Amino acid sequence: MVIKLRRGDLTLMTDLVAALDIGGTKIAGALVDGDGRILERAQRATPAQQDGETVMRAVEVVLGELAGSPLWDRASLLGIGSAGPVDASAGTVSPVNVPGWRGFPLVERVRTATGGLPVELIGDGVAITAAEHWQGAARGHDNALCMVVSTGVGGGLVLNGQLHPGPTGNAGHIGHISVDLDGDPCPCGSRGCVERIASGPNIARRALEQGWLPGPDGDTSAAAVAAAARAGDPVAVASFERAAQALAAGIAATATLVEIDIAVIGGGVGKAGDILLTPLRKALTDYATLSFVQRLTVVPAQMGTDAGLVGAAAAALARRPDAAGV
Amino acid sequence: MVIKLRRGDLTLMTDLVAALDIGGTKIAGALVDGDGRILERAQRATPAQQDGETVMRAVEVVLGELAGSPLWDRASLLGIGSAGPVDASAGTVSPVNVPGWRGFPLVERVRTATGGLPVELIGDGVAITAAEHWQGAARGHDNALCMVVSTGVGGGLVLNGQLHPGPTGNAGHIGHISVDLDGDPCPCGSRGCVERIASGPNIARRALEQGWLPGPDGDTSAAAVAAAARAGDPVAVASFERAAQALAAGIAATATLVEIDIAVIGGGVGKAGDILLTPLRKALTDYATLSFVQRLTVVPAQMGTDAGLVGAAAAALARRPDAAGV
Repeated sequence: MVIKLRRGDLTLMTDLVAALDIGGTKIAGALVDGDGRILERAQRATPAQQDGETVMRAVEVVLGELAGSPLWDRASLLGIGSAGPVDASAGTVSPVNVPGWRGFPLVERVRTATGGLPVELIGDGVAITAAEHWQGAARGHDNALCMVVSTGVGGGLVLNGQLHPGPTGNAGHIGHISVDLDGDPCPCGSRGCVERIASGPNIARRALEQGWLPGPDGDTSAAAVAAAARAGDPVAVASFERAAQALAAGIAATATLVEIDIAVIGGGVGKAGDILLTPLRKALTDYATLSFVQRLTVVPAQMGTDAGLVGAAAAALARRPDAAGV
Repeated sequence: MVIKLRRGDLTLMTDLVAALDIGGTKIAGALVDGDGRILERAQRATPAQQDGETVMRAVEVVLGELAGSPLWDRASLLGIGSAGPVDASAGTVSPVNVPGWRGFPLVERVRTATGGLPVELIGDGVAITAAEHWQGAARGHDNALCMVVSTGVGGGLVLNGQLHPGPTGNAGHIGHISVDLDGDPCPCGSRGCVERIASGPNIARRALEQGWLPGPDGDTSAAAVAAAARAGDPVAVASFERAAQALAAGIAATATLVEIDIAVIGGGVGKAGDILLTPLRKALTDYATLSFVQRLTVVPAQMGTDAGLVGAAAAALARRPDAAGV
C-alpha cells in the first residue's frame, strides 16, 4: 500500500490519500491511510444556497486545513465523492442541492488548490459502495449493489471485483429506475421511480395520506413511521411494505441485469432494520425469480457516517496503476 | 489474431474458433475466423422434447461434421451460446425449451467430444451481444445493451469495452426485470416483466384482447399486428406503443444502473422497425431523465441469423489471455 512518487528531486514515501465528501449539508475532508483509517479530518457547512465561488471557497478552507497537517506531504492522490449528478469524464459536478454549481469544474479547481494532486471524482452513491466493498458489508463480494435509502435513494455497483462507476461516475443510480411505468410522477421527470416509492419522505407521505397519525411530538418523519410500525400500526407497516416492494423490484432488476449476489442497504431508512428488511427479503422472492439471482442476499450497511470519505479514498486508490484488491 | 498452441510435438498455427449456437429449434455449429467470418457450418434440428442424451447426440453430430473439415485442426477454442438459463461457473445448461436438459454438464461433454478444446459457455442473449459488439451495431461502443425482442426478450451487456456475461453467463437478462411491480403475472414467477409486456406473443395477445381483428389469412402473429399498425389500425398501434413503453423503461433502467450509451434491438419484433422504434425513442425521453443517460441512442441490430455463432466465437476469443478488442 506504499507507493513512491518523485516530487522535484526527492523520492518521497507517500502512503496516504486525501478525500473529500461533498454534500448539500456539509463538506468533509480527510487524510486516509491504506487501511481506510482516517488520520486527519476537517469539515465546513456547505453554503449550498450561495454562489459557486463561495461554495468552492468552503472546499478550499477544508483542503487548507488538511494541508496544514504534518501528514499532508504523505498524500499523493485525492478522491472526491460528491452529491450528484457528477460528470467524471468532464471533471464537473452539478449537485441537485447546490444550485450555484452547475457543471462546476471541481476536479480542475481541486487539482489547482492542491498543487497538482491527481484527482478522482465519483458520485456519492458510488463512494459509499467503494467503502462498503473495501471495509464493510460487501467486503469479499465480487458483484454487489450498495444502496443509501434516505431522503433520496442512491447506490453503486461492484462488478467483477471492481467498483463500476461508469464513464461519468454515476452508475448504480437505482433510485431513478422505474419499477412502476404508469406510476406517480417523480421529480426527476420519470414515473414510478424506486425513490418515488421508497425514500423516507415518500414513506412518511404515504403513511399520512392513508391515515397514519403522528404522536404527540408531531414527528412525521420516516423514523416516526418506523416507530409506529414497530408498535403495530397497520398503516405504518403497509407504507414500509410498499417501500420494501419497490426496493425489491429494483434490487431484483439489478441482479437480473448484472448478476450481483449481495445488496447492502444503508442510509436513514435502512436503519429501520427489520421493519424494512423483513418485507424486503420476502418481496425479493417475488421479483428475483430466475435461477441465477435466487441466491441474492440483502444485508444492512456496516460503514458509518465516514463511508463517503473512506469510499472517495478507495476510489482514488483503485485508479492507481498498481491497484489491487481495493 | 493468430495464436500458437503446442499439440504434442508440433507447434501449429491456430487461427479459428469453433462455435455452437444451441436453441430450442436448432443446434448450429461453425468454424469462425478471427474476423468473424464463418468458414464451415453444420446444423441439426434440436430434438427438444427427447431425453438429454438424445439432445447431446445431436450436438455431437454437429461437432463431428465440423471435425470432418480440413479446417478443424486450426480451431483451438470453442464457444457455446445456449438458450438459458445457463450456469457458466458450473458449466451446465437448463434451457427452458429443452426439458431433457436440466443442469446438463454441456461444457464437460463438449470438451470431451472435441478432445479437450477449451470451452467458453454463455447465454444466447450474451452471445448476440458479443456479435453486435464485435461486428455489428454496437461496434466501437464501450458500454452497450443488446436485446433480442422475439418470442421472448433477452439481452446482454458490454461494459468498459468488454462483454459482461456475469459469473453465470446470464447478465443482461432484461426481459425479466419488472417495470410494473403490480402488473400481470409473468411465467417466470414475477410480475410486470418487460417480456410479459413487449414480447411478440404478448403484443399479439394484447391487440386481440382489445379488439384487433386479424386479416383473412387468420395470421395473429406480432408481425401481422405490425402490418396492421403500419396500415393505421389504432389498436395495433397501441399494442406496439405499450411494448415500446415497457422496453423504454427497461432500457432506461439499464442505462441508469450501468451507464450504457447505446441500445441495439434485434429479433423478430425488432424487425417491426419504426412501428416499434419511433414510440420506443419517444418513451425513452420519458424514462431516461437523468443527465448522464440522456444521450442514449436506440438502433436496430445489424447481425443476421448467424449472430449466435459469431458471438459464441467472440466470447471464446475474448477469454484468451492475449485477447484485445474482441
